[in-house]
Amino acid sequence: MNTVDLITKKRNGGTLSPEEIKFLVDGYTAGEIPDYQMSAFLMAVYFRGMNVEETVELTDAMRLSGDVVDLSAIKGIKVDKHSTGGVGDKTTLIVGPLAAACGVPVAKMSGRGLGFTGGTVDKMEAIPGFKTAMEESDFIDQVNTCGIAVIGQTGQIAPADKKIYALRDVTATVENLSLITSSIMSKKLAAGSDAILLDVKCGKGAFMKTEEDAEKLGRLMVDIGNSSGKKTMAVISDMEQPLGCAVGNALEVAEAIDVLKGQGPEDITELSLKLAGIMIYLSRVAGTDGLGLEEGIARGQEAAEQALQDGSALEKFRRFVSGQGGDPGIAEDPGRLPQAKLSKQILAQQEGFVSALDAMTIGLASQHTGAGRQRKEDEIDLSAGIVLAKKLGDTVRCGEVLCTLYGNDEDKLALACEEAVKAFIIDDTKPEERKLIKKIIE
Amino acid sequence: MNTVDLITKKRNGGTLSPEEIKFLVDGYTAGEIPDYQMSAFLMAVYFRGMNVEETVELTDAMRLSGDVVDLSAIKGIKVDKHSTGGVGDKTTLIVGPLAAACGVPVAKMSGRGLGFTGGTVDKMEAIPGFKTAMEESDFIDQVNTCGIAVIGQTGQIAPADKKIYALRDVTATVENLSLITSSIMSKKLAAGSDAILLDVKCGKGAFMKTEEDAEKLGRLMVDIGNSSGKKTMAVISDMEQPLGCAVGNALEVAEAIDVLKGQGPEDITELSLKLAGIMIYLSRVAGTDGLGLEEGIARGQEAAEQALQDGSALEKFRRFVSGQGGDPGIAEDPGRLPQAKLSKQILAQQEGFVSALDAMTIGLASQHTGAGRQRKEDEIDLSAGIVLAKKLGDTVRCGEVLCTLYGNDEDKLALACEEAVKAFIIDDTKPEERKLIKKIIE
Repeated sequence: MNTVDLITKKRNGGTLSPEEIKFLVDGYTAGEIPDYQMSAFLMAVYFRGMNVEETVELTDAMRLSGDVVDLSAIKGIKVDKHSTGGVGDKTTLIVGPLAAACGVPVAKMSGRGLGFTGGTVDKMEAIPGFKTAMEESDFIDQVNTCGIAVIGQTGQIAPADKKIYALRDVTATVENLSLITSSIMSKKLAAGSDAILLDVKCGKGAFMKTEEDAEKLGRLMVDIGNSSGKKTMAVISDMEQPLGCAVGNALEVAEAIDVLKGQGPEDITELSLKLAGIMIYLSRVAGTDGLGLEEGIARGQEAAEQALQDGSALEKFRRFVSGQGGDPGIAEDPGRLPQAKLSKQILAQQEGFVSALDAMTIGLASQHTGAGRQRKEDEIDLSAGIVLAKKLGDTVRCGEVLCTLYGNDEDKLALACEEAVKAFIIDDTKPEERKLIKKIIE
Repeated sequence: MNTVDLITKKRNGGTLSPEEIKFLVDGYTAGEIPDYQMSAFLMAVYFRGMNVEETVELTDAMRLSGDVVDLSAIKGIKVDKHSTGGVGDKTTLIVGPLAAACGVPVAKMSGRGLGFTGGTVDKMEAIPGFKTAMEESDFIDQVNTCGIAVIGQTGQIAPADKKIYALRDVTATVENLSLITSSIMSKKLAAGSDAILLDVKCGKGAFMKTEEDAEKLGRLMVDIGNSSGKKTMAVISDMEQPLGCAVGNALEVAEAIDVLKGQGPEDITELSLKLAGIMIYLSRVAGTDGLGLEEGIARGQEAAEQALQDGSALEKFRRFVSGQGGDPGIAEDPGRLPQAKLSKQILAQQEGFVSALDAMTIGLASQHTGAGRQRKEDEIDLSAGIVLAKKLGDTVRCGEVLCTLYGNDEDKLALACEEAVKAFIIDDTKPEERKLIKKIIE
């Protein structure tokens, strides 16, 4: 086999065989195929696409490029949850304890973020003492004893994806369904869970701008997951405005605690309960075993609501945090989380309704506060970020606070304010209500 | 400016500004833009194309990436000739002396070949003693005294093209009109001649398989040349079967001498006279000054025919060879050229007409004899190659020789024979005659 021939084949609209795809992935991972050939191939894929069979093979070759985690020592049906990413998405911190409190074993490997805020691992590290690196045996022990553990990805999970993703990022070849799918699913499938729930975001703050595109991605990922023998489902959810009110690492941990206390914003509470409900259904616990989709999810969601109301989810969060070395006292006193020295408020200049609240712009502003990375090597300011006081459709009076920005650098904060103010549009018409959960795909 | 943004712009079908194209070419040549970004960009160009303005800018940026040769010390209108390449194309060796004999100053830089046979420089080196490397001042002297010099390209002509071409070759991004055009024209425009004649080949043995594609390429190259202030013309000529009968380096030199003696194959003689006629017209010599296109070319062609008949073209060839250190005795005794130790004949297995003679297959067979390179570092066997005894439309009796293969390695020669036999199709119907010169573009 010859790399140029394979690039040519894809460039001309051909379909690659499993052997050809494996040749490319293995050769690239081993350094035998150079970056410049892989990037030309990826651009050809951008234009020509891959069919489902090719995407299955690509995902599989990437999955097998490194370690495949064996979680068989954990009892029960392990369910993983993955979000395609958005602004203010701290659902893992809520859904994990919720599902675990209902008996779902949650053994999760999460990433760091490159973008508006850190990833789940960065957010967890905002908790004093919390350790996101763990031996595999300790990880398994923690899930067996506590029901939930969340650690950083080890270097050996799908190294092909790591290498290919880094290349896509600098060669304008990110935006392709098959490449996105294989990147996400190769890691999820290697991470050892038995079932996978995907939260595919759509809207201004998401990678997929339209519901239609998000649905296509969700559909493909679900098909790839199921083809690979793991029960996979996806939720398409709104990311037009930020999820919840807090954007930033410590700020999001604090909001996650609020939600677990039953005092969080409505939207993130609703989504978290739905996601937990589906995880419970996928894990066949809390009385969902043997039920059909609709009834099973409803039953799961009831169980999750119960765990929220009776405090068992918050208690699970406390145990999860202390199990990984963190300070469980943050649940009672969020003041123990990193605090920013400076804050600035943005006030409404007119009255009316919040008719637009652009998640992407809030995300950029959050990055300016120091809450996110621009480059891999950047350090995150865990205390920095934004808390929204108003959300889409809220009424606003002149002079009211729209949001508060937190940080430790005057200049950065000023820049962040300049950006954040652009996110809000206030006018006389109340905007149509947006559906938060748009679709469930199985 | 940011490379990823520019790749994205082209990928999305945008038009790059002159500054953006210059940024990419200069950055890549300087090593600031890595191979993997350039190859992704080239693949985006493959799919999205470039308009004429972008192609002009790309060509210009590549032309200016290295030395621009100053031939102003040579009197008269210097005319360069370039062939897009085919099998058995030894026209430079014929047309150069022909045009020079009629007063056209020919100051030519030629390439080595990667493919079926060597390039012009390799072919010249088949002449004992011939030197293709020369100081620029000696090169200019030789043109002023002898009327013609042909040397190898110096490393400093359009280094951007050298680097980009090498990358295209291994990333399946060769086949794009704008990229082909900029590659050829950047070198031609930097090489210092005042006018340019392009011989664009079409057919099985050429890069462009159809007359339509060849015409598109010719049109674009002519437009780019003229836009850059150099009078440029193109001939579209047939490359379905090999040009002439000889394929291989020393073999082609011998055939060129035959043509200059008026004893060469009809097709290559016809094409050489036409090309020389156009060069004479472009140089405004031999009484073509002030004439219109048709009349000018006709007058030029007459002058070339005269130079062939009166022996002045052959004499010019002799002086050209000895001027560059070669043995002019080859003109009388082609036996002084490198001779292969082995030869094999391919005999007809049936009678009829040669209804197909695939130039590409003969080219591959020639490469197998050792006459061409597969990789840049390969050494060429200057004595190896093929001589056709039959051409398209010829009648054949059973047992007659179709072609003779020459080489110095039994195994290679056997492999070459296996290939060569596939080139001929003999059947009962005389094929339609193909037009050799299909079009002239100005």
